[in-house]
Amino acid sequence: MILNYNEIMKRQQVQISEVGPRDGLQSIKSIMPTEQKLLWLKALYDSGIQEIEVGSFVPPKLLPQMADTPEVVRQSKSWQLGTVLALVPNLQGAQAALEAGVDKLTIPVSASQAHSLANVRKTPQEMVEQVAQIVKLKNEVAPHVSVEVGISTAFGCTLQGQVPESEVISLAVALANMGVNEVGLSDTTGYANPAQVKRLFKQLFQELGSKAGAAHMHNTRGLGLANCLAAYEEGVRTFDASQGGLGGCPYAPGASGNVVTEDLVFMFEAMGVSTGIQFEKLLAARKVLQAALPNEQIYGMTPEAGIPKGFELNG
Amino acid sequence: MILNYNEIMKRQQVQISEVGPRDGLQSIKSIMPTEQKLLWLKALYDSGIQEIEVGSFVPPKLLPQMADTPEVVRQSKSWQLGTVLALVPNLQGAQAALEAGVDKLTIPVSASQAHSLANVRKTPQEMVEQVAQIVKLKNEVAPHVSVEVGISTAFGCTLQGQVPESEVISLAVALANMGVNEVGLSDTTGYANPAQVKRLFKQLFQELGSKAGAAHMHNTRGLGLANCLAAYEEGVRTFDASQGGLGGCPYAPGASGNVVTEDLVFMFEAMGVSTGIQFEKLLAARKVLQAALPNEQIYGMTPEAGIPKGFELNG
Repeated sequence: MILNYNEIMKRQQVQISEVGPRDGLQSIKSIMPTEQKLLWLKALYDSGIQEIEVGSFVPPKLLPQMADTPEVVRQSKSWQLGTVLALVPNLQGAQAALEAGVDKLTIPVSASQAHSLANVRKTPQEMVEQVAQIVKLKNEVAPHVSVEVGISTAFGCTLQGQVPESEVISLAVALANMGVNEVGLSDTTGYANPAQVKRLFKQLFQELGSKAGAAHMHNTRGLGLANCLAAYEEGVRTFDASQGGLGGCPYAPGASGNVVTEDLVFMFEAMGVSTGIQFEKLLAARKVLQAALPNEQIYGMTPEAGIPKGFELNG
Repeated sequence: MILNYNEIMKRQQVQISEVGPRDGLQSIKSIMPTEQKLLWLKALYDSGIQEIEVGSFVPPKLLPQMADTPEVVRQSKSWQLGTVLALVPNLQGAQAALEAGVDKLTIPVSASQAHSLANVRKTPQEMVEQVAQIVKLKNEVAPHVSVEVGISTAFGCTLQGQVPESEVISLAVALANMGVNEVGLSDTTGYANPAQVKRLFKQLFQELGSKAGAAHMHNTRGLGLANCLAAYEEGVRTFDASQGGLGGCPYAPGASGNVVTEDLVFMFEAMGVSTGIQFEKLLAARKVLQAALPNEQIYGMTPEAGIPKGFELNG
């Protein structure tokens, strides 16, 4: 395993992977029209975001919000503004995504036995086999495409409670051995705390080296940014986030699901860690989002409070 | 300066200093009746909170919400449940507080020249003299009482923008030399970021040793808990927080001023860092607060989302 961990730790820049157009839009009832979705995606890429999860390849009957993903992928690709990422839950989805021309696939694999069986009727081990088939297909038809796995419920599960850390790590090792490019850890349930985040990512880097992937944190209990900070301190340099915290829990004001992109970008930029994102343009994209979904509550404290006096955020 | 920094860093426990009854109540329009304030304070101490800022000694014309502070101090003292702390802005306030029988005084001193002049018509240096007089009075009439200074606008100021870090630290040194027991740093404006928090508290410990005091963080831009985590990692073991984030900014949903006690306690307890607080009893105190202020919005994500399945928080 080749890894210059010291080199990673010195890097004062991060990549934000915007997941709102997939994770956010699939969590709300409104269906964003394709034309407006493309305006939003364009505004997000224009702000400097380098990677966007533009949609998912799932049956339209299950998620009508994602029915236009093939078209969205094709259009996004034509701009050549950044990585076009799509979620695929299985081999059929991967085939459709590769046909549409994605740059990168992301596959969710749950570490929780209970969650995995309930959601996809497969054990985590059976999902590893599915991932192996996807990697094989990808290598045959589109070897330039990269494959990421996000291990969901890595920090706990609403069905079974605690998920043993050893199971998360051995699952990550098995997936890396199947040839995926990156394995990240997702706090699907908003259970993570900074000490746990540090323990798990430390082990992930030890076992996977440069294949250790993104931190996908939720803000359900308000710890989203603290958990991102903890992950950063262990060497993580890619963070999933959702503009406006789209896909938030309606029962708790401000209790968004995903970490809010705007607040995460402010935190890193204020720390002197470059995101490559221009904050004003990110706010412009936020306006496009709100105009496209006038009846949805969007979150974020920095957009409301404004950038502090005397701050210069350069992106 | 005697300091066993390694010993501090090893301590897996923190003290939460509840500031809601002062910082929270003075920021809202409603005036909480004394009887209900006492019920709330009792419930907070009963949850295991060891220190509460129960009020401030300021002219009732300026802050009618605090007019009952002498009575509140006397009652709180009679329970003998924990430290009774009160804010005093000047010598007259200190005299009144000592007469009422507080255990501890806290004095705000602004590091920002502009903020200090606008608020108290004194420079920070003139405030150091004021603090010296308060310490002298205290030593004469109540030597067992401890004196804390919270340096406000330590991380930036809405009037002057950036506040030079060297000015913050030299102010802290001057205050420590005047005989105060602890000097803490307050992010009055919600400007702080974790990298800055680490830099400033590291210097504070280097210069002040065991006199380095509490972190008082705001959540204005969503970074409150991340900043507390950063302070913890530098050795801070006392944290100000406000139940329900009382005193929040009404313009931004969820954008409370003070860090929310409930979320901060959850973060530390989940990390295995003991707060001495029983979460269920903290929620009981929250109900007392909400009943006493039925028309005020209170915040906090953990109370809404609940404790994760399989978690045991022992306090």
